[in-house]
Amino acid sequence: MTKDRALEILNSNQSALRALNHATAILFVDGETVAPVGSAPYRAKTLGELSRMQYELTTDKDAVAALEYLYEIRDTLEPVQKRHISELYRTLDMTRKIPMEESVAFDVLISEASAVWHEAKVNDDFEMFEPYLEKVFAGMIKHAEYFDKEKDPYDVTLDLFERGLTKSKCDSYFTELKNRISPLIKKITSAPQIDDTHIVGLFSIPEQDKISRFCMDLLKIDPKFCTLGETEHPFTANINKYDVRITTHYYENNFLSSLYSVIHEGGHALYELNVADSLVDTCLGSGASMAIHESQSRFYENYIGRSRPFTDLLLGYLKTEFPGRLGDISENDFYRIINKAGPSLIRTEADELTYSMHVMIRYELERMIFDGKITVHDLPKEWNRLYGEYLGVNVPSNKMGVLQDSHWSGGNIGYFPSYSIGSAYGAQYLELMKKEFDPYAAVSAGDLTPINKWLEEKIWRHGCMYDPGDLFASVCGEFNPAVYADYLENKFSTLYNL
Amino acid sequence: MTKDRALEILNSNQSALRALNHATAILFVDGETVAPVGSAPYRAKTLGELSRMQYELTTDKDAVAALEYLYEIRDTLEPVQKRHISELYRTLDMTRKIPMEESVAFDVLISEASAVWHEAKVNDDFEMFEPYLEKVFAGMIKHAEYFDKEKDPYDVTLDLFERGLTKSKCDSYFTELKNRISPLIKKITSAPQIDDTHIVGLFSIPEQDKISRFCMDLLKIDPKFCTLGETEHPFTANINKYDVRITTHYYENNFLSSLYSVIHEGGHALYELNVADSLVDTCLGSGASMAIHESQSRFYENYIGRSRPFTDLLLGYLKTEFPGRLGDISENDFYRIINKAGPSLIRTEADELTYSMHVMIRYELERMIFDGKITVHDLPKEWNRLYGEYLGVNVPSNKMGVLQDSHWSGGNIGYFPSYSIGSAYGAQYLELMKKEFDPYAAVSAGDLTPINKWLEEKIWRHGCMYDPGDLFASVCGEFNPAVYADYLENKFSTLYNL
Repeated sequence: MTKDRALEILNSNQSALRALNHATAILFVDGETVAPVGSAPYRAKTLGELSRMQYELTTDKDAVAALEYLYEIRDTLEPVQKRHISELYRTLDMTRKIPMEESVAFDVLISEASAVWHEAKVNDDFEMFEPYLEKVFAGMIKHAEYFDKEKDPYDVTLDLFERGLTKSKCDSYFTELKNRISPLIKKITSAPQIDDTHIVGLFSIPEQDKISRFCMDLLKIDPKFCTLGETEHPFTANINKYDVRITTHYYENNFLSSLYSVIHEGGHALYELNVADSLVDTCLGSGASMAIHESQSRFYENYIGRSRPFTDLLLGYLKTEFPGRLGDISENDFYRIINKAGPSLIRTEADELTYSMHVMIRYELERMIFDGKITVHDLPKEWNRLYGEYLGVNVPSNKMGVLQDSHWSGGNIGYFPSYSIGSAYGAQYLELMKKEFDPYAAVSAGDLTPINKWLEEKIWRHGCMYDPGDLFASVCGEFNPAVYADYLENKFSTLYNL
Repeated sequence: MTKDRALEILNSNQSALRALNHATAILFVDGETVAPVGSAPYRAKTLGELSRMQYELTTDKDAVAALEYLYEIRDTLEPVQKRHISELYRTLDMTRKIPMEESVAFDVLISEASAVWHEAKVNDDFEMFEPYLEKVFAGMIKHAEYFDKEKDPYDVTLDLFERGLTKSKCDSYFTELKNRISPLIKKITSAPQIDDTHIVGLFSIPEQDKISRFCMDLLKIDPKFCTLGETEHPFTANINKYDVRITTHYYENNFLSSLYSVIHEGGHALYELNVADSLVDTCLGSGASMAIHESQSRFYENYIGRSRPFTDLLLGYLKTEFPGRLGDISENDFYRIINKAGPSLIRTEADELTYSMHVMIRYELERMIFDGKITVHDLPKEWNRLYGEYLGVNVPSNKMGVLQDSHWSGGNIGYFPSYSIGSAYGAQYLELMKKEFDPYAAVSAGDLTPINKWLEEKIWRHGCMYDPGDLFASVCGEFNPAVYADYLENKFSTLYNL
């Protein structure tokens, strides 16, 4: 095999795979947004067929041989190609570590577990989900052993979702956070509560849609390459850097929910839209990891979107666009309503301060199961105990408790910590930005260009060229959770006059 | 090869092809409706890749061998399978008649010609399009010779789009129509004109959207399997019988345009949605032909939608839903406005009466080129001459003339007659329905069930089980253009008090 021939074989194989991935992504987005509901079963059939083709292409003998050859000679390749080949090889290598039959059986299990979870949640019936969840945890533990027998299985599992993340890193992160945030949450719970009743039902859905466009415009999301749709749960679909779809969900009663969904998904979108052109035709053409992605979305949502300069700007816009609608609400009241915090039951509805506690609970539960300290059967009881302990709330049902998230049913165990770590990363970005320019002056001026430029330069353009830990370190040096805890403490102590 | 083995190979091949067709159709619909505009180039790349895979699957040696074997033993198969195999074999056989390089070159030509046509239309520049169009016509003539050296090339070409259609059938059809309709059009042109100025700008786009839903509901289009989108030009995409998308285009000034687009596309949708379940997993699971399809869409649009019982019903709905909006317009005035007829320049905007004249002009031009009587260079001059002769209008520019339709640039030569013949078919359906029940009583009652049931039984459920000519004959016996001419003559003589 020659290098040119190997590249030719691999490129043609990858090009076909990219086309199938593209089609699969559009079928998914279309199904979630505008497709008629009755089209789902046939679409599932088609997706199954496309997935079979993807599998055939991934395991194609010639392509695998070409990849192996190119991996051998990777040091002779230019950097992007070298990284591309190394990443493809890494995936291949991991795929081969799990025996074929087990891999197929696990895919079937996941598909069944997801369906059962849906039903279990609707019926508030953990018992029907339990045997499936047991098998999912068992499967993930077994996979971890296949991947690396020498390492702790939960460390291997964390690494699947966020390369380089370990129990020990999570432990020190969550411990710092718990020690600093828990007392703050307790104080807020007993402080005078913020009244947000006068913003209920203020804007119709077409008006909320207009507000969404304002936010997308403010973030400088180019509508040429990114559109907004409506779905039950907001998400970002990154087809490629020229085609990103974000979605939101409008609630008649609460315009802030959709508004901050748009800003959050907008952050994800900006990242994808600004990956370097040179990476598009490789496997490196999207965000580096889930934590780095969340560090973008939650940066725009919270550090920018829930900052006082932003809420002032937003209030100004709303008062101009919808005269009289907001009455005589003050900038300070508006800022406080938007940042209203307090213990709650549902992670996806949690405020900026308490969000990480929800994540921590899930992390601790996963860790205990991997460590054999509890079983899946104990999850509801342990879940409720931790919600009582960390957030001081009584969980009234499993539907509002352990059954609320889809992640575990989909095999996404070890995934949760990234949500919180991504949030924490943002505090360090903010500190660094402040050394170079005044990000909040940019927000006040309604021109986020310097913020976008900074993130594009440091993070976005690199796509998957670097491991997420290395990427973060190259920008911020060492990860320091105290910066995040300081930020939360300052913000919420001031907000609640503690 | 055994029958079971051959079926296994072919079914797996067809299943993969169906998945790629499904993905391709959704990528197209998504691109035309909600995708960001900047996503087009990468989507084109993906579509190219999927098309390459489709080609590989179609020409896969094992699948071809299985198909050939099954075609040999087709008489041992049950009817649906036999038809499925015969149709697949027919396509394969035709594909093989064109040398590979020529087929590829023609695809490239079509793609270039389409792009050039777009630009030529915008710039009103026939000269830039001419060399491409020459090659397209030459290519289609050459293909016709490959398909059947013995037959007249234009007959072969007509048969490509409507199996069984010939010049001689078209000639006798259009002659009858011209003789009967031309004098009528002349009389209408000099009769007192219908004033439709008071319906301009009556309904906002969200209101028009509401009217669309009313129409879809009236046609009994199940929203579980069919959604409505917005595009520059309305169309129907039949993904499969469980997933049909219709689109419309809203004009602020003219609510009737979108309303009748929805009814037209709704007719196409009903056909696709009601193909028998047993045909879905075969190549027979959609409408039988373009003329049969138009005979459904134009039946709902014109015979039903522009009938007096329907316009009365519509006016009643609009007066109830938007009180006072239509002033004191009478049922008769509303009916006359909706059926306003007269010579015009643009086919897609033509009324029920003059529409076929637009089609006939295109037919005559194609026929003359195939017969060597004119060249592509003569097209603008000949186009303008025929518009003067048949419709009495002066064509002010090629943009409003010979460049208006995309069909020829896309290789769709021989396609136009089906539009008009489909319209004519409807007159015979109507006569037959009237013998069994009162279709207009159903319309007046606002319940189209008996009409839908009749068409489902006679046409829809059969999908592609029969050749279109046989299907029509099985329902209506011989095709008789006089029935259509009678219908038009009666309707428009009465309408214009001639």
